[in-house]
Amino acid sequence: MDNTGWKPHFSSRMRGMQASEIRELLKVIEQPGVISFAGGIPDPALFPRKAIAQAYSQILADPNRAAKALQYSVSEGDPALRAWIVGHMAGKGVACRPENILITSGSQQALEFLGKLFISPQDTALVAAPTYLGALQAFAPNEPAYDSLGFATTNRTADSYHEAATRAGGAVSFAYVVPDFANPTGETLTRAERLDLLELARDLDIPIVEDSPYSALRFDGDPMPTIQALDLASCGTIDASRVIHCGSFSKVFTPGLRVGWVCASSEIIEHLTLIKQASDLNSPAINQQVMLHLAQTLFDEQIAKTCERYRIKRDLMLAALERHMPEGTTWSRPEGGMFIWLTLPEGQDTVALLQKSIAQAGVAFVPGNAFFADKTGHNTMRLSFSLPKPEEIERGIAALASVLSGG
Amino acid sequence: MDNTGWKPHFSSRMRGMQASEIRELLKVIEQPGVISFAGGIPDPALFPRKAIAQAYSQILADPNRAAKALQYSVSEGDPALRAWIVGHMAGKGVACRPENILITSGSQQALEFLGKLFISPQDTALVAAPTYLGALQAFAPNEPAYDSLGFATTNRTADSYHEAATRAGGAVSFAYVVPDFANPTGETLTRAERLDLLELARDLDIPIVEDSPYSALRFDGDPMPTIQALDLASCGTIDASRVIHCGSFSKVFTPGLRVGWVCASSEIIEHLTLIKQASDLNSPAINQQVMLHLAQTLFDEQIAKTCERYRIKRDLMLAALERHMPEGTTWSRPEGGMFIWLTLPEGQDTVALLQKSIAQAGVAFVPGNAFFADKTGHNTMRLSFSLPKPEEIERGIAALASVLSGG
Repeated sequence: MDNTGWKPHFSSRMRGMQASEIRELLKVIEQPGVISFAGGIPDPALFPRKAIAQAYSQILADPNRAAKALQYSVSEGDPALRAWIVGHMAGKGVACRPENILITSGSQQALEFLGKLFISPQDTALVAAPTYLGALQAFAPNEPAYDSLGFATTNRTADSYHEAATRAGGAVSFAYVVPDFANPTGETLTRAERLDLLELARDLDIPIVEDSPYSALRFDGDPMPTIQALDLASCGTIDASRVIHCGSFSKVFTPGLRVGWVCASSEIIEHLTLIKQASDLNSPAINQQVMLHLAQTLFDEQIAKTCERYRIKRDLMLAALERHMPEGTTWSRPEGGMFIWLTLPEGQDTVALLQKSIAQAGVAFVPGNAFFADKTGHNTMRLSFSLPKPEEIERGIAALASVLSGG
Repeated sequence: MDNTGWKPHFSSRMRGMQASEIRELLKVIEQPGVISFAGGIPDPALFPRKAIAQAYSQILADPNRAAKALQYSVSEGDPALRAWIVGHMAGKGVACRPENILITSGSQQALEFLGKLFISPQDTALVAAPTYLGALQAFAPNEPAYDSLGFATTNRTADSYHEAATRAGGAVSFAYVVPDFANPTGETLTRAERLDLLELARDLDIPIVEDSPYSALRFDGDPMPTIQALDLASCGTIDASRVIHCGSFSKVFTPGLRVGWVCASSEIIEHLTLIKQASDLNSPAINQQVMLHLAQTLFDEQIAKTCERYRIKRDLMLAALERHMPEGTTWSRPEGGMFIWLTLPEGQDTVALLQKSIAQAGVAFVPGNAFFADKTGHNTMRLSFSLPKPEEIERGIAALASVLSGG
């Protein structure tokens, strides 16, 4: 290679792909002494380590099971796991069959596949502002434009979205939402907002991508129907639904086995399966079988345990925020999940504050602008309460508040 | 959804994506009684099941190791596994550092990433004819044109490739080859052919993707230097190399853990890491750690065992072909790997013959046209000797020969 390096050789779609600030952060903050409210990382004390060890051991002790678990397998995913998910989705009001389920390597892979399937060059994706950073990264190779889903705060109509997409040179490809305990805000869409979104999607004739990794982690308040279940209540069958539901075991059991799923019309699943085949042939069969064992034996118990622990941490963080934060700072009060969203007075810049916070207070968070497609939101930040130890939460929030107060 | 279904909503790039005939075949031929020479599937009797069980068990027995093995991890891959691969590549004449290694979910994922990184719309990829079907699928979402690498059979020049790519509307993005015991032909590029390819790549100023999953499976003949090692001998350092080497543990240990790697200049690895992050965050850390344990304790022994078993099967298949095949049929004589390539007299159609072969002889193979970007090669087929039992090989080839003879 000559001195110019490889850049001129890279494809046009690489222009939109940048390093994740969160992932880069994860490297920096792994210093002893730093209290991290940054990554959306499950508490490893909750991983059902012994049950996982037992499941691997049982599968590998049987030569016939091992021969299948260690072999190439079908791109759709393990049939028994897909059957379990069919039952799980039925419990969420979504009647479906195994043909409606694809196993993916976490929800992240599902988002990447959906971008590939639906976003043509110049198309517009509708996303919340702020939205999940990983979704923006997953869609980026398809070079979409973005438009903001309003929810109660704007009076955007289907026509206005359509016209904006046309001006951007394409069509609206889909609406993407994290309806429950959203990453990054911790907020949950109301039933009315879900129905409004469905109506908008019908008017625009677009699919809705319902990214639902946190929905099982509800600590209080009433369970909310999935958008897919609300759609099925009117359209009748999963194959007629415009909602694509992405589920994950990462936040319930462990993210380390990389097992998630998509539930959608069989036509969409067929095409996602082609994409899966071309992308990595199949997710590790042995990991899927281990996850099935956990789901069959521990699901409700594990959710209860996780909610109990995270509820304590959320309450500690909310109490500490109340106690320490300077006037003019506001925050979300999530009923579940992993995240609290903090808004500082206008004019503050949380990117600059992060440097200061790490240096002076030994506390890390994610600057909020990372979660905006247009990189606004400079006065916001995401705090995660799932990973830090209870005793670190009070101490970390107090130290952070002192930095925010200019102390 | 209305009656037209989702098709009008799918992105333009889905036009090029079709179901893999091989993967669809795998479903059909899993009937008892069918002898399959179709899939390129390792013999599960060779999977080091007990060592794998022991590795999972050891990792999960230690709470600290388990907490990391079951957590999200860095997109680049497990640092210790990358360090092992650095040593492994040094043994192949490629001096590199961990920054030159990315862990992928099998080689298939590496190919998908490389397509994304290098192929802009209308670009041309240079591939052998025939070539690995999975590579064509991996590149398909980027809608490339294809041009054929000649190797000894044509007199194509850099200029002629460049001109053809310009006519197709873009540039040549890269040359893709499986240099050792190729899928599907079983053939190995000579040293002279490797040097010619490097010269062509230099003239065109393009990278070479060296897909090398079978290279460890050499039964006889002299080891051949990797194209990357040949390039380093003249360009000096990995960061100056235009060769991107894709390695895999799938054919040596097990494909079920989905662990492969890319070795390339650090600039390319950085960009592939961004793609990895957006695609699935990271490959399962626990599987990478298990693979490291196997690599550290069993690598040479496992290769010796695998080569011994596959050599016997190859010899049985070559002997059976010699004994039974009708006049006018020719085949490759691979020095390793998993595949033999059969060429029937002009005018024969192996797609039609496959139906007949399964129905009349209970024998499956892959019709050769699946491996040609232009879907020619109707009189060819791929036979794999890795999976069938030794006693099935003689019987299956005899039965297949009888079908080919019109018997």
